[in-house]
Amino acid sequence: MTPGPGIARTPLPQGFTAGGVNSGVRKYRPDLGVIVSDRDCVAAGVFTTNECKAAPVRYCMEILPNTNIRAIVTNSGQANAATGEEGERNNLRLVKATADSLGLKPGQVLVASTGVIGHQLEIEKIEAGMPILAASLGTNAEPFALSILTTDLVPKTLTSTVKLSGGEIRITGISKGSGMIHPNMATMLGYILTDCAVPAELARGLLKDVNQKSFNMISVDGDTSTNDCAFFLANGASGVGLATDADFKKFKKALTEVAQALAKAIARDGEGADRLIEVCVKNAPNQAMAERAARGVTVSPLIKTAMHGFDPNWGRILARLGAEQVPAAALDKLTLEMQGVKVFVDGAPVPFDREAVRNLLKAETVRLEVDLKSGTAEATAWGCDLSKRYVDINVDYN
Amino acid sequence: MTPGPGIARTPLPQGFTAGGVNSGVRKYRPDLGVIVSDRDCVAAGVFTTNECKAAPVRYCMEILPNTNIRAIVTNSGQANAATGEEGERNNLRLVKATADSLGLKPGQVLVASTGVIGHQLEIEKIEAGMPILAASLGTNAEPFALSILTTDLVPKTLTSTVKLSGGEIRITGISKGSGMIHPNMATMLGYILTDCAVPAELARGLLKDVNQKSFNMISVDGDTSTNDCAFFLANGASGVGLATDADFKKFKKALTEVAQALAKAIARDGEGADRLIEVCVKNAPNQAMAERAARGVTVSPLIKTAMHGFDPNWGRILARLGAEQVPAAALDKLTLEMQGVKVFVDGAPVPFDREAVRNLLKAETVRLEVDLKSGTAEATAWGCDLSKRYVDINVDYN
Repeated sequence: MTPGPGIARTPLPQGFTAGGVNSGVRKYRPDLGVIVSDRDCVAAGVFTTNECKAAPVRYCMEILPNTNIRAIVTNSGQANAATGEEGERNNLRLVKATADSLGLKPGQVLVASTGVIGHQLEIEKIEAGMPILAASLGTNAEPFALSILTTDLVPKTLTSTVKLSGGEIRITGISKGSGMIHPNMATMLGYILTDCAVPAELARGLLKDVNQKSFNMISVDGDTSTNDCAFFLANGASGVGLATDADFKKFKKALTEVAQALAKAIARDGEGADRLIEVCVKNAPNQAMAERAARGVTVSPLIKTAMHGFDPNWGRILARLGAEQVPAAALDKLTLEMQGVKVFVDGAPVPFDREAVRNLLKAETVRLEVDLKSGTAEATAWGCDLSKRYVDINVDYN
Repeated sequence: MTPGPGIARTPLPQGFTAGGVNSGVRKYRPDLGVIVSDRDCVAAGVFTTNECKAAPVRYCMEILPNTNIRAIVTNSGQANAATGEEGERNNLRLVKATADSLGLKPGQVLVASTGVIGHQLEIEKIEAGMPILAASLGTNAEPFALSILTTDLVPKTLTSTVKLSGGEIRITGISKGSGMIHPNMATMLGYILTDCAVPAELARGLLKDVNQKSFNMISVDGDTSTNDCAFFLANGASGVGLATDADFKKFKKALTEVAQALAKAIARDGEGADRLIEVCVKNAPNQAMAERAARGVTVSPLIKTAMHGFDPNWGRILARLGAEQVPAAALDKLTLEMQGVKVFVDGAPVPFDREAVRNLLKAETVRLEVDLKSGTAEATAWGCDLSKRYVDINVDYN
């Protein structure tokens, strides 16, 4: 994962270029970025389930899945949500300006927006910035990753190289998100690019499965955004395909790892957060309950504040599990570990060294593990602690 | 509503006495209280839907509804939740000690606990305090109301006098609650007492209806407690009953008003809160959606922080309504008012005086009104703003 701007370099898969510039919408930071493929991509997307969908989300839902996508343009600062018909028109202008500056057809361009809800895009500034953006394209992910940030502190990029039977392929993941994070379909914005040749029939199912174990399992504040989307683009530029079952498994595993790393980076960079909270619920009666229980713990403001203060308050975790309808029979026998220390065993509290656990809870990543002993389903969710800085950031964000 | 200890006096209905003392469990504040009726009461209760139910909750669910209840004992500081069989035994000892000191049978005593989850009751201290408690009984609600507080800043009591066809009756409401407030059945603790004669068959239905429009419509932090309960006790000591339909309507209306006043007082006293947020969703397609939408807005950390900073950020409200599955068709025509000022009309933003609305949002009570124009259902929910003090209070609460 990129530790910060200007330090690491994340190479894109073959055939992809990307760039990011300031078009003047935001004062100092880059606010307009694009990812371009030199050939047609198999493309899939997953989108917010929020009924208040931004114009770019509605547009992408219309044209995906698709097999001749060439670019994704993204602006930051203005979400183009709750902007009515003018928002729709501006979204089409953004798509057209991108296509024009890259010599593509509008139907080959995907679009995402992030920022304040309810403000119209400053489309003239964006259109004027487009030729500069088109001239800025390079083979690393960072300039694009920086251009899509809002309250994020760090860009989130990652490239994984996978050896398949036919040769090496690359998967690059890019994401943003820091607040209004409780995806129910996708995260704020996620992009997964590969030069592997992926059959169109597989693309959407792959993204859906991967998304359910990554972006859909994070929460910063329980607020589901109007603009969430995750894209998957495969351009086949490596000349390597998924030839065998082993290839497919290897590829899916790598894809999941990339998506999970991006998802965790978003939770870790949650507004005002000091640490990543990883919650694993094991041996649940079914998958839905495992997921709901794990997510429920990451969402609870009482658990989030306790984690902020290194407080091994297991009672709040039990209470939340019960509120998520984990059955009383499971609560009566569960075991709960904090950073590997058992604090509640077989349904009853056990003595533990409180000061030692407090110290363990000061780590960068805190792992809470719940064993329900009631089945075989398992899920992991990621969240972050709740600090006073979250309040500072959100009292007047415009 | 009582503004603070020692200022107002809230008389109990006829036949009721109450008291509160310090039994030594908590350092300075009273921690043990009891409400007593001089004759049998028709009694009903509603309880948390959390699967992790405290011992006192399980006990009361067992013996209610009932027609010969004489007392409710309540301890604060220890919730007696997640305490296993020892917790059950301690709960029965608490009930027996109360019955013994008041000359009642154990089956006539209800019990509620509030405080830290997972600690065993210091039952010997409580038993030793019981005779002192029994000797402290008086005809005002305050000593009891003070003894049940945890992080609350103010006691919450209210007496309403209602003229029925047969004469006057009184309804007294008492509640506590400040954190882990997102009741799903009842609030943290609510007690509604009346000297009206109420048929046993009506009691539970009345409480259920009233609860759904009051305690079930508040939220401080979205965390549902293990100990939530609301009790309704009617002892008939006034000699006045519900003789006519008009009496019933009048009584139910007064009961609802008492419960709503208590519920609003809990939300207003939410941990770290500066103000009460009242959210009214009108003209929804159905009741469930009206309630879910109104509650959703009160739960959103992003809206709560915006309200803390007087920020008229209507975009976050729209986003939350969409996340609560208010259909896009309704979002496209809704009107949203903040403190009576229209900021979004017929599905589109309208210009408004931002500074003027900021000033209006500084009030003690902020009202957000959403007109969905899609039906006739209506619901009001209450919450509070989210401040840095919430984080302070919850980083290490033990």
